[in-house]
Amino acid sequence: MNVANEAPPELLREDRPGGVTLLVLNRPERRNGLSLALLQALRRTLAEIAQERGVRAVVLAASGPAFCAGHDLAELRAHRADADGGRAFFRTVMDECASVMQAIVALPQPVIAAVHGVATAAGCQLVATADLAVAEEGARFCTPGVAIGLFCATPAVALSRAVPRKAAMEMLLTGEMIDAAEARRIGLVNRVVAQGAAREEAIALAQRIAARSAFVIRLGKAAFHRQLGLDLASAYSDASSVMVENLMAADAAEGIDAFLEKRAPVWQDR
Amino acid sequence: MNVANEAPPELLREDRPGGVTLLVLNRPERRNGLSLALLQALRRTLAEIAQERGVRAVVLAASGPAFCAGHDLAELRAHRADADGGRAFFRTVMDECASVMQAIVALPQPVIAAVHGVATAAGCQLVATADLAVAEEGARFCTPGVAIGLFCATPAVALSRAVPRKAAMEMLLTGEMIDAAEARRIGLVNRVVAQGAAREEAIALAQRIAARSAFVIRLGKAAFHRQLGLDLASAYSDASSVMVENLMAADAAEGIDAFLEKRAPVWQDR
Amino acid sequence: MNVANEAPPELLREDRPGGVTLLVLNRPERRNGLSLALLQALRRTLAEIAQERGVRAVVLAASGPAFCAGHDLAELRAHRADADGGRAFFRTVMDECASVMQAIVALPQPVIAAVHGVATAAGCQLVATADLAVAEEGARFCTPGVAIGLFCATPAVALSRAVPRKAAMEMLLTGEMIDAAEARRIGLVNRVVAQGAAREEAIALAQRIAARSAFVIRLGKAAFHRQLGLDLASAYSDASSVMVENLMAADAAEGIDAFLEKRAPVWQDR
Repeated sequence: MNVANEAPPELLREDRPGGVTLLVLNRPERRNGLSLALLQALRRTLAEIAQERGVRAVVLAASGPAFCAGHDLAELRAHRADADGGRAFFRTVMDECASVMQAIVALPQPVIAAVHGVATAAGCQLVATADLAVAEEGARFCTPGVAIGLFCATPAVALSRAVPRKAAMEMLLTGEMIDAAEARRIGLVNRVVAQGAAREEAIALAQRIAARSAFVIRLGKAAFHRQLGLDLASAYSDASSVMVENLMAADAAEGIDAFLEKRAPVWQDR
Repeated sequence: MNVANEAPPELLREDRPGGVTLLVLNRPERRNGLSLALLQALRRTLAEIAQERGVRAVVLAASGPAFCAGHDLAELRAHRADADGGRAFFRTVMDECASVMQAIVALPQPVIAAVHGVATAAGCQLVATADLAVAEEGARFCTPGVAIGLFCATPAVALSRAVPRKAAMEMLLTGEMIDAAEARRIGLVNRVVAQGAAREEAIALAQRIAARSAFVIRLGKAAFHRQLGLDLASAYSDASSVMVENLMAADAAEGIDAFLEKRAPVWQDR
Repeated sequence: MNVANEAPPELLREDRPGGVTLLVLNRPERRNGLSLALLQALRRTLAEIAQERGVRAVVLAASGPAFCAGHDLAELRAHRADADGGRAFFRTVMDECASVMQAIVALPQPVIAAVHGVATAAGCQLVATADLAVAEEGARFCTPGVAIGLFCATPAVALSRAVPRKAAMEMLLTGEMIDAAEARRIGLVNRVVAQGAAREEAIALAQRIAARSAFVIRLGKAAFHRQLGLDLASAYSDASSVMVENLMAADAAEGIDAFLEKRAPVWQDR
């Protein structure tokens, strides 16, 4: 994916057959710290993918020994020398990061995090934000901002929506690492697989999702997130309309026919 | 419960001594598929029960090998031949289904699902919607709409309010079955009992609840659901008022007296 | 902490070195029932602590065999003889209790419950409300209001925000005890420790939190609770601003410097 004699891109993109796109955080020497450039690359790439009908599921993985160590602290520190003490740069980075996280939620395609090594701070936030997450046995997770005088306030937004309140508070107030089994117990990841197998398993899971009607997956992911914020009556009103629109679509007709005729469906929206 | 030479009703109702009413989905040959007629029977029966002071708890169970396979796909498909391609019928079915689910939440009496076999799609939604759920060891759960081109958007409303977000997303995006132990792990069911024992255990649980003051259970179930949608201060304001009204009631006086006098209470609201 | 020949205070306060304050419910003969006086003492003490920069974390523990048995039923019953049947007193107690619970959430410092014996009704609510909870192996939890004709409506507010919906409903509708392991499974407590070790372990946990920048912990706890009630975009907007303010603070500069220089930070806000 790289061109010789050029710095390798901080974000690698690889389109696999069958509609699965692999995004790889690629600053291994910085433990994939989320520099402004890497956040911008993520946002730009997610914006592109959102428009691409050929992409049906996304796997977010990482190069090197760590999944992602959060923000690039050296970069943040360097901007303290700015005339404003860094405020404008900090604001840019934080807004960019919040945009990336919300772009994952808003992306029409499901996003599956494939986690190995450590996922800390905004790295843990990426995992909490992804629709699904597969972790290796050795993977570990924490929101350690309290250890460096910088509370993980934005990671808390994603974490507190993924796991029970006291579990989130414990991670945020102590900054302590949890292992993959504990991450699964509290709901931060869906599956724990053998060491070295996270990316492969996440891709396999993505391929199974990519084999469905892309129209239906898009419709469903958006409906899921939309109804979460509504009261019960409004949620049902919205979701019932989604069901009616879905039932009127060609892929539902095909899917129901295929099911009743005990054959495999052939989706129109491939 | 049936009259000879008539089609058996799609919904059976049996009032047990002590205030427990058993509702049984009874389309075993269709795996209790939720036809419009069955949904209407459920809604009508729930509306009746809501008015009956003699009913103090409801158990929702099912005949045949499956708990409930969701909507009746053959019925939905047949209406594609309608002049409007089925839209009006689909709307009617989805509105009816959403009404049934909200009627379970709004029912003054607690509803306990007794689950054996598979509970899929809107069948899984019934389990997620019930106040409590008891499952047999062999019970299995899924929201498999993606397999037939019809995302389980309305089941998602109930599921996402019962289980952690990523667990809901995994079921919805993969359509894969989870077993009873996993359903308990994520919070979809309360208890897993021996094969063949779900209905009996759910009835025993309902009888223990039915032995309480019906006034107190009604007050509490309604207060529980009402406060869920409020911010913390409003929730406490509402709940504190509920406590005061409850304390002024005869059954609280009797219950507190009985407790302090170390005797069994005799509820006025039997 | 007591003066001879005086009734011991119903709430003990002990300030430990390093910024940890221990609050001890001290009505052991009444299983620490939350009389109006004890609730008022709690509220007054929490209001004082909120203003004290020297207090960096709070442990809430209890004297005697029980953690807390909830409201003082004998006191409530005695007020039935009031001219208004007790209504004004019940209102005062419930408002006071709701204020205490919200004061724990609003307290700038984290609150860790150290639970031994039983925590029932409003006692269980204290555990659910605390930011973190450490329980001994023998600790048990319930919301048994239904047994005395008084639904645990206000405990439900805290419980339903700490644990999955069906787990909360089961406790509220059955009134049955759950043990410490089950309390951890559903998210009501963070850690289960050996019999007799809850207070010591909670203090150790509080000391680790108290060793962080108090500014950062205060900022973070408040931000955590504030964003919970917001939609995703508003939550990120709020949290991003918190991050920027935190980055501009001296303790973040020191923490990041110390981390990058591989040395221990020295917080300004000790």
